[in-house]
Amino acid sequence: MNIDEIVKEANKAKIKLMGLSEDIKNEALKAVAENIEAKKEKIYSANKKDLEYAKTLVESGKITKATYGRLKLDDNKMRDMIQGIYDVIKLEDPVNKTIFTRELDEGLILKKVTTPIGVLGIIFEARPDVISQISSLAIKSGNAVILKGGSEANNTNSAIFEIITEALSTVDGFPKSAVNLVFSHDDIKEMLSKDGYIDLIIPRGSNKLVKFIQENTKIPVLGHASGICHIFVDETADFDIAKKICIDAKIQYPTACNAVETILIHKNFAKENELKAALKEAGIEVIENPEKFGVEYSDTILNIKTVESLNEAIEHINTFGSHHTDSIITNDNKNAEIFMNNVDSAGVFKNASTRFSDGFRYGFGAEVGISTNKTHARGPVGLDGLCIYKYKLEGKGQTVKEYATGEKTFKHKDI
Amino acid sequence: MNIDEIVKEANKAKIKLMGLSEDIKNEALKAVAENIEAKKEKIYSANKKDLEYAKTLVESGKITKATYGRLKLDDNKMRDMIQGIYDVIKLEDPVNKTIFTRELDEGLILKKVTTPIGVLGIIFEARPDVISQISSLAIKSGNAVILKGGSEANNTNSAIFEIITEALSTVDGFPKSAVNLVFSHDDIKEMLSKDGYIDLIIPRGSNKLVKFIQENTKIPVLGHASGICHIFVDETADFDIAKKICIDAKIQYPTACNAVETILIHKNFAKENELKAALKEAGIEVIENPEKFGVEYSDTILNIKTVESLNEAIEHINTFGSHHTDSIITNDNKNAEIFMNNVDSAGVFKNASTRFSDGFRYGFGAEVGISTNKTHARGPVGLDGLCIYKYKLEGKGQTVKEYATGEKTFKHKDI
Repeated sequence: MNIDEIVKEANKAKIKLMGLSEDIKNEALKAVAENIEAKKEKIYSANKKDLEYAKTLVESGKITKATYGRLKLDDNKMRDMIQGIYDVIKLEDPVNKTIFTRELDEGLILKKVTTPIGVLGIIFEARPDVISQISSLAIKSGNAVILKGGSEANNTNSAIFEIITEALSTVDGFPKSAVNLVFSHDDIKEMLSKDGYIDLIIPRGSNKLVKFIQENTKIPVLGHASGICHIFVDETADFDIAKKICIDAKIQYPTACNAVETILIHKNFAKENELKAALKEAGIEVIENPEKFGVEYSDTILNIKTVESLNEAIEHINTFGSHHTDSIITNDNKNAEIFMNNVDSAGVFKNASTRFSDGFRYGFGAEVGISTNKTHARGPVGLDGLCIYKYKLEGKGQTVKEYATGEKTFKHKDI
Repeated sequence: MNIDEIVKEANKAKIKLMGLSEDIKNEALKAVAENIEAKKEKIYSANKKDLEYAKTLVESGKITKATYGRLKLDDNKMRDMIQGIYDVIKLEDPVNKTIFTRELDEGLILKKVTTPIGVLGIIFEARPDVISQISSLAIKSGNAVILKGGSEANNTNSAIFEIITEALSTVDGFPKSAVNLVFSHDDIKEMLSKDGYIDLIIPRGSNKLVKFIQENTKIPVLGHASGICHIFVDETADFDIAKKICIDAKIQYPTACNAVETILIHKNFAKENELKAALKEAGIEVIENPEKFGVEYSDTILNIKTVESLNEAIEHINTFGSHHTDSIITNDNKNAEIFMNNVDSAGVFKNASTRFSDGFRYGFGAEVGISTNKTHARGPVGLDGLCIYKYKLEGKGQTVKEYATGEKTFKHKDI
């Protein structure tokens, strides 16, 4: 099938998915998990092929060792992949939840009810485990999905995709073309042009990939191009807490998007030098370079700036940050409140590491990514972010004319 | 100020607006309403100038009489404009509402809290009353707003804008540059290019305007380009209800976006001919033209199609509709359920006129428009649609390392 046909099939599947019960969706997920478990040797052997070729790409410098690592499936990743599906089965069905019920008038009942968004387009790099993860989230939230993986993982992706499709086709009433995989590089361009047929694009990969996608589509894109997070060490900050959190937010996983990049220190904080010394001792390269305020290092480098005031810190963050996650270390509740209200980021923290900004840590069970968008979904996005709502109105033959003429009046009573 | 400076000022104002109390926002709204009341003669005299010029445009065929009518402010419109602001004062503040509070662990409390989106861009045509309406919704929801009106209303728009700004500057702590107006046609292009600085565009005007905007910006656009609504008269439909609702949905306000365009009639519905006769008698031009299924008439014309089944009706609507509002007339609850689940529209109705799809009728108090988007906000959009949320996390120095090593475990308990 070419991409136009795939998009058409996905749009047919989305309608069927909308009305599916939680039972059928969970049955489909179980079938997928069991089939991956049963056929994992097939996946390993496909992965082996990809790895052999990828090795030559590493040798010729076309891909990094890190990419090779993400591509490689081992027993741990396979177990996590399968367990991940069972975890999604346990999550509450986000669809068909009533947000409110309102009696507009006698016998005229309005319900606002959650529904799937429709068709998701997922563009990801290297990591083939993304397929099962995103497919299971799409299935649970009743969305059809079109996946495009990195070409270096083509064999592995195909193997996993076939196993998923095979499992789905055994489930009575479940539309097989809920999950789709496309291959060629041109398919990305095609996918990005399908506004009206693909409802949401979720990129999973490098900042470069995300930025490219954001700049080349009219379809809403869920995600973040960069994670430039800050910690502001206030005048009244506790030294031990500041030290502990700054180190954790940088060292615990330096390449994470929620790792800190710049530390702002209030000029009256007494132990600035001790803090810098502690950071260096923890293995962090400490720099003080105003030209790099907008840089995401993805490495154990921290930029430091001394600020005159809380307000300067807030302005700095709103100017140079990426509206992802920013934390204040303080013992002053008033300052914390001002910081948390006025920093325009998805996560605003007080005396906690920026690294907590994560769907699993927030208790969402699974996440599709972290969004720095200002509409739809912000911060770590779980199943709820893959849903929208519709309004269902049930009447007994009412017309608007009766209300426009004053013959009848609205009650607007929430029930 | 040029548009770059205005955008910069609006972005400064948005930060101040985020933390404002409901009291200050209501005080600002009251000041605006009172100042419009006090200076309405100034507005009328500006409007008179616009009308004089517009008259020549009507004569030379450059604008329609309808546009002239929308431009003209009379006592009724002025009263509605002022009353509209007092109505917004009465609406509940949508900002700083806690969506959930979760104990991630002892002393580590996560709150999901509603916030303003940031900076709204409003592009509208002819109707100068939009300025006060949208400005008051923006103020109440804590958003800064940049307005661009139609050039035919420049004098009226300027007068209203100056009166609003003057009022806002008297309110202690309220940022005057929360509300901004730009004038030149080039400003539209400029506004549409400000992604990252304008967070949401709301067009208010013709389908052509909306389509142009949707196709020329990467900023999320809230609205609908067209309203192609359907009524499906099922096999078991009550004739009187079908007749009453079809007539209301077309005649009560034929140019409304929620007016019906196509009626689908089940082949076993006994009184198809009587229904057509009744529609004609009501003054509706009844056509049966498969080539016009995607047309919004904005007139007393109805297209009719006989369908074989409920499924054909659903497929027709999902194919030719604009995902706005569609209604089933039936006495079969099972069919109604299937219709309401499988029609992919913002409003899915049973035995009620499509014309009920409206923020005031839904009880939202005020609306910024009706959205056919699949993300963020769908259907009639009130103050809630001008908000997003942020995550506030308060800790006591916790680091992620403690949880990654297993030293501590998450509680994830909603409180």
